[in-house]
Amino acid sequence: MLLPFCGRMDAPARAGWIEALNAALAAHGVEVRALADLPPEARAQAEVAIVANPDPAELRALPALRWVQSLWAGVERMVAELSDLPITLVRLEDPQLAATMAEAVLAWTLYLHRDMPRYARQQQARHWQQHPLPLPGERTVGILGFGNLGRAAGERLLANGFKVLGWRRSGGEHDDIPVERGEDGLSRVLALADILVVLLPLTPETRGLLDEARLAHMKRGASLINFARGPIALEAALLDALSRGQLAHAVLDVFDAEPLPPAHPYWAHPDITVLPHISAPTHLGTASRLVAQNIAAFLAKGNIPPGVDLTRGY
Amino acid sequence: MLLPFCGRMDAPARAGWIEALNAALAAHGVEVRALADLPPEARAQAEVAIVANPDPAELRALPALRWVQSLWAGVERMVAELSDLPITLVRLEDPQLAATMAEAVLAWTLYLHRDMPRYARQQQARHWQQHPLPLPGERTVGILGFGNLGRAAGERLLANGFKVLGWRRSGGEHDDIPVERGEDGLSRVLALADILVVLLPLTPETRGLLDEARLAHMKRGASLINFARGPIALEAALLDALSRGQLAHAVLDVFDAEPLPPAHPYWAHPDITVLPHISAPTHLGTASRLVAQNIAAFLAKGNIPPGVDLTRGY
Repeated sequence: MLLPFCGRMDAPARAGWIEALNAALAAHGVEVRALADLPPEARAQAEVAIVANPDPAELRALPALRWVQSLWAGVERMVAELSDLPITLVRLEDPQLAATMAEAVLAWTLYLHRDMPRYARQQQARHWQQHPLPLPGERTVGILGFGNLGRAAGERLLANGFKVLGWRRSGGEHDDIPVERGEDGLSRVLALADILVVLLPLTPETRGLLDEARLAHMKRGASLINFARGPIALEAALLDALSRGQLAHAVLDVFDAEPLPPAHPYWAHPDITVLPHISAPTHLGTASRLVAQNIAAFLAKGNIPPGVDLTRGY
Repeated sequence: MLLPFCGRMDAPARAGWIEALNAALAAHGVEVRALADLPPEARAQAEVAIVANPDPAELRALPALRWVQSLWAGVERMVAELSDLPITLVRLEDPQLAATMAEAVLAWTLYLHRDMPRYARQQQARHWQQHPLPLPGERTVGILGFGNLGRAAGERLLANGFKVLGWRRSGGEHDDIPVERGEDGLSRVLALADILVVLLPLTPETRGLLDEARLAHMKRGASLINFARGPIALEAALLDALSRGQLAHAVLDVFDAEPLPPAHPYWAHPDITVLPHISAPTHLGTASRLVAQNIAAFLAKGNIPPGVDLTRGY
């Protein structure tokens, strides 16, 4: 059986996904092809499509479509663009995601802890100079957003010697990590963190959370890592805090507009590390195996996996 | 009592050390000063000096000197320059060292695993592009030198999900990490490692170990981290392997000559990360406390700690 792959991404990425999906689906007698490469008969019969940031027009051209399996965990855009179609939107729920995000938080915490941006500047200037290195237990990492991802990140940092504080709107305690709540709790985390990691979902409450006033509450010379959503930290406030030395460095993986526009001041800022939204990418292998399980169950028994709740939006 | 501090380092580093040492020694009635700031009487009476890469001429100007406490773990240079003096050379044996080296190995392994050099180049070019990320269990890290430091590094990598192989000249097994030996074992590690970490001591056997032939044995496109001693990897062979794409990247913290001379081709090489010998620096706080214990025991009971064995050289 031929199934369509509908994804807006560059050609090498598309080829990589199609290869990984076909490796996982071959045992189930399924072959995946880009929509443009699909014969008209297969288009007419496709009840399921595998999608990754799909062009809505492509999906509307599949008359028998009943559900789509997304390769991403995030669904904001799919919900906004596809919710009028009479289909079930299935997001990827990959248990590998929290481990990959924890790895990213550790990797860029060590990047800041080990002064890598400064040593890179020194290399460019052919300048040999050593700087004092604190013990990891002398660094406090504050994690804003202490759900599934935040907990995994906090535990990974703790296992590698850092002091960790969490902050969340509501929810449970943690045996080994103090978890603050509410505006008072946020102020305490801001005042204590040497490195602040943002892992919050984007909601009306978190949009603009890190504004001028809250950045001013941070410990002077602290650093920021935003692996969540761009609009949680206000761009102008962030640039101002960096220019005054209130913040030493920002590692940004997410932006108000993505891709980050070529003229944006972040690109050339000496104290900003720009990453192209790569902190916790979907892994081709594990994701393809999860997708193959869902497709195989549908082909065998007609089961469509639980879809996104369109009223909650996730 | 006033004791001399003899160290060749820049002024801020010297001031930092003297402050940390005095914080640890104040309780024992001892004050440390740079030799130039010491009154003649104190110079004449000093039986012990705290040293860090000392100028031999300074030590020869201390007539009552019986022993020196070094702040470094490495003693090659001190042995070469001071072994004709009738004094005991005491090296720093800081149990924090292995943990700090393990942290450095993890930090720069993640730097390579997470493609940080490539994303930094993309930022300079204002280029937004995502690259596939393997799982850490899909990366094999080979560790050459599997003593105290190598084991600590290997265990830290394993705890963070990487596959690890060790190689050592002789010595015991490890419960969780395969440890290869001999020339055959070295060939196997070279062929399997995606990232090769050098933690060997510099000896006649390890000098030039990573030559053209052994670098050619490595997996094509692998990367190298040298946190041991520069001469273990031959400079010309390394540059050649990088230029042919046999090696993708090298993270170098140690060099044939240090500081790395300003005209050296490493500085501007796009596939070399130059670090100024900072992988596992002595920590001012823990080192000062260890030094204070040794000094206090000497003042109370006349005990001089065990010195370096000048025949073995360590």
